[in-house]
Amino acid sequence: MSQREFMSEPPDSPTSVGWTRVRSARLADAASPFSLESGGVLPVVDVEYETYGRLNRSRSNAILIVHALSGDAHAAGWDRDAGRMGRPWRARRPGWWDAMIGPGKPLDTRRWFFICSNVLGGCYGTTGPASPDPATGAPYGLRFPIVSVGDWVRLQARLIDHLGIRRLHAVIGGSLGGQQALEWALALPDRVANCVVLASAPRLSAQGLAFNAVGRHAILSDPNFRNGDYYGGGPRPTEGLAAARMMAHITYLSEEGMHRKFGRRLKDPGKRTVGFGVEFEVESYLDHQGKSFVERFDANSYLYITRAMDLYDAAQQWGGGDLVAACRRVAARAMIVSFSSDWLYAPDQSRELALALCRTGRPATYVVVPSYHGHDSFLVQVNEVGRLLRGFLAPGGGA
Amino acid sequence: MSQREFMSEPPDSPTSVGWTRVRSARLADAASPFSLESGGVLPVVDVEYETYGRLNRSRSNAILIVHALSGDAHAAGWDRDAGRMGRPWRARRPGWWDAMIGPGKPLDTRRWFFICSNVLGGCYGTTGPASPDPATGAPYGLRFPIVSVGDWVRLQARLIDHLGIRRLHAVIGGSLGGQQALEWALALPDRVANCVVLASAPRLSAQGLAFNAVGRHAILSDPNFRNGDYYGGGPRPTEGLAAARMMAHITYLSEEGMHRKFGRRLKDPGKRTVGFGVEFEVESYLDHQGKSFVERFDANSYLYITRAMDLYDAAQQWGGGDLVAACRRVAARAMIVSFSSDWLYAPDQSRELALALCRTGRPATYVVVPSYHGHDSFLVQVNEVGRLLRGFLAPGGGA
Repeated sequence: MSQREFMSEPPDSPTSVGWTRVRSARLADAASPFSLESGGVLPVVDVEYETYGRLNRSRSNAILIVHALSGDAHAAGWDRDAGRMGRPWRARRPGWWDAMIGPGKPLDTRRWFFICSNVLGGCYGTTGPASPDPATGAPYGLRFPIVSVGDWVRLQARLIDHLGIRRLHAVIGGSLGGQQALEWALALPDRVANCVVLASAPRLSAQGLAFNAVGRHAILSDPNFRNGDYYGGGPRPTEGLAAARMMAHITYLSEEGMHRKFGRRLKDPGKRTVGFGVEFEVESYLDHQGKSFVERFDANSYLYITRAMDLYDAAQQWGGGDLVAACRRVAARAMIVSFSSDWLYAPDQSRELALALCRTGRPATYVVVPSYHGHDSFLVQVNEVGRLLRGFLAPGGGA
Repeated sequence: MSQREFMSEPPDSPTSVGWTRVRSARLADAASPFSLESGGVLPVVDVEYETYGRLNRSRSNAILIVHALSGDAHAAGWDRDAGRMGRPWRARRPGWWDAMIGPGKPLDTRRWFFICSNVLGGCYGTTGPASPDPATGAPYGLRFPIVSVGDWVRLQARLIDHLGIRRLHAVIGGSLGGQQALEWALALPDRVANCVVLASAPRLSAQGLAFNAVGRHAILSDPNFRNGDYYGGGPRPTEGLAAARMMAHITYLSEEGMHRKFGRRLKDPGKRTVGFGVEFEVESYLDHQGKSFVERFDANSYLYITRAMDLYDAAQQWGGGDLVAACRRVAARAMIVSFSSDWLYAPDQSRELALALCRTGRPATYVVVPSYHGHDSFLVQVNEVGRLLRGFLAPGGGA
């Protein structure tokens, strides 16, 4: 979620997946519309996805990577289509989990076939609020139906069908992606053999709900939001979206991480503080995060995706409120990884999931990685996460 | 900072201070302007204050109560002038620390004479950005100079002079008020005998700076903010201020407190979630906090006061960055109280102050109160805080 801190690897490196190509599949149409948990129906759904590595003959080596709130299908390598698609930021850096996916990397493309798709309601090529409503030809805006983690997973299953894959070797995701990984194991237990849930939880805490609510408030009250109909030109609700992102960023880091990275250092120590501009380094950092985010993300998608994050509740959905009962559905081997300084999806919440799985007798591994990077650890603690993933995916491997 | 959870006591209760009256004193004028740490000079400063109890003949029983970010001079009792002064919210509830101050209460008005004044830059009667600039007659807006915790304390000292008091028996404050209490002991060591610092720290953490920055960003980017010149009628930057307040409120509670109070309960469990309005109880609570705050607080004051909170650094100011060196200035007996679930001014930060005082051999008491109310504990943990204050103020008393 933060700017990654590891080095980016050039596309010609032997351990990079190299140049990647955006793919798209129409997974719902008039003949097979896509019904949503909220009751809505989408007559057309296109999904953007990427793949890395090769599907083997028995189609048994596929692993689905699921992205978090602001992620996309471009998990690894360098996007060949960045210019053509109007995504200049992709020309500046590789995919969001490039450190993890590639030949010889923990998610080894010499052995596995990886798929990553953009979520429904997003703004990176999959149908969302900016897409044209076939009924009117105009962008959906807030007429787009509410989507859920469960919807995302069912749509990912359609993509897997489309690719001719019956059963995934694994689903792997962090944060909101971890909730999708868990939902795969709960909703489609016969279609996934292994499940990795990083920096996530079976549901968002009250504090997490509160942060999402304030972020949406900032967007909804931006006068340029215009009830979501801002696609026709003119200013967009960039200030509201920037404020939402800045606030969310605080929840992605930890107090210790912020202290180490910025402390109370002034941006310009020679200058006497005179006003309300950027004075401290941490202000400068957040300011940059807000500004760069609005260039690449759509405010409506932010609303839809955070609401899906709010509403996900694995125990409620599958166990009538009882997480252990829900976990009885799981057939996959699971690895649950939390990070000591993560306070958005705190270790206690991951632990609750791991305990519930253990109580049902399912093979589950639970790891707390010591880290001061907060929630972002799943993206930046490359060595630790890599070691865990490598071990878990090794034949007969545990964590 | 949150809506108080204790019962309000009617003005005719024997332990209430009863009806109170707003007072005002002109503490700077052409003959004695008020110079600020930022280099600015205010030619006129009026201070609103209240007092409870009676000053004794030897003028030795005065205790200064200092308020936090959104507080005011109305610490106890019922404001007789609420209607006349256009402050209808004060007709609905007693002063912000009414549970603590009154005849027989922990801050006992039968024995002590309490003074509480509104800070410079505030919006409750003391000169601030909404006050007329004598040079132009128009409200200052952002032409008001940057103010600091040190300025506040020096102005409070002028108020004490005005009341004919040489030395305070104690200064007591929580949060930003705790920083003022500490600053009294550092800046004016011969004028304060006892000092109580609740839920505070010698400086704000990087995370705290970050939250303040995002709150100010929301205000500054509200199109109705108009560079702070919104006093002449027309809409005010209420959405930005509400967003800032909602976010700050999350930092005043703890995750556990939010979980106990709201959990993931829906506001209207019968209704299916369909959009981005208020769905969860915690959203409803924050929405209410934002809406009620903008009726009683000025956005410019929010900017000035949070900036003062950012800039305060006791060690930097008085010890060249060394807190122990700074604490050598202190002559007062000190009690430092933190709350286990406070993550805005976390116990570790209070502990650092207590340790620094102890290293200098100053008589200091440090207490961590177990609490799930987060930062707000200093306002809502009435029994625990009351017991500590009573003990500390008792003749020869410790904590």
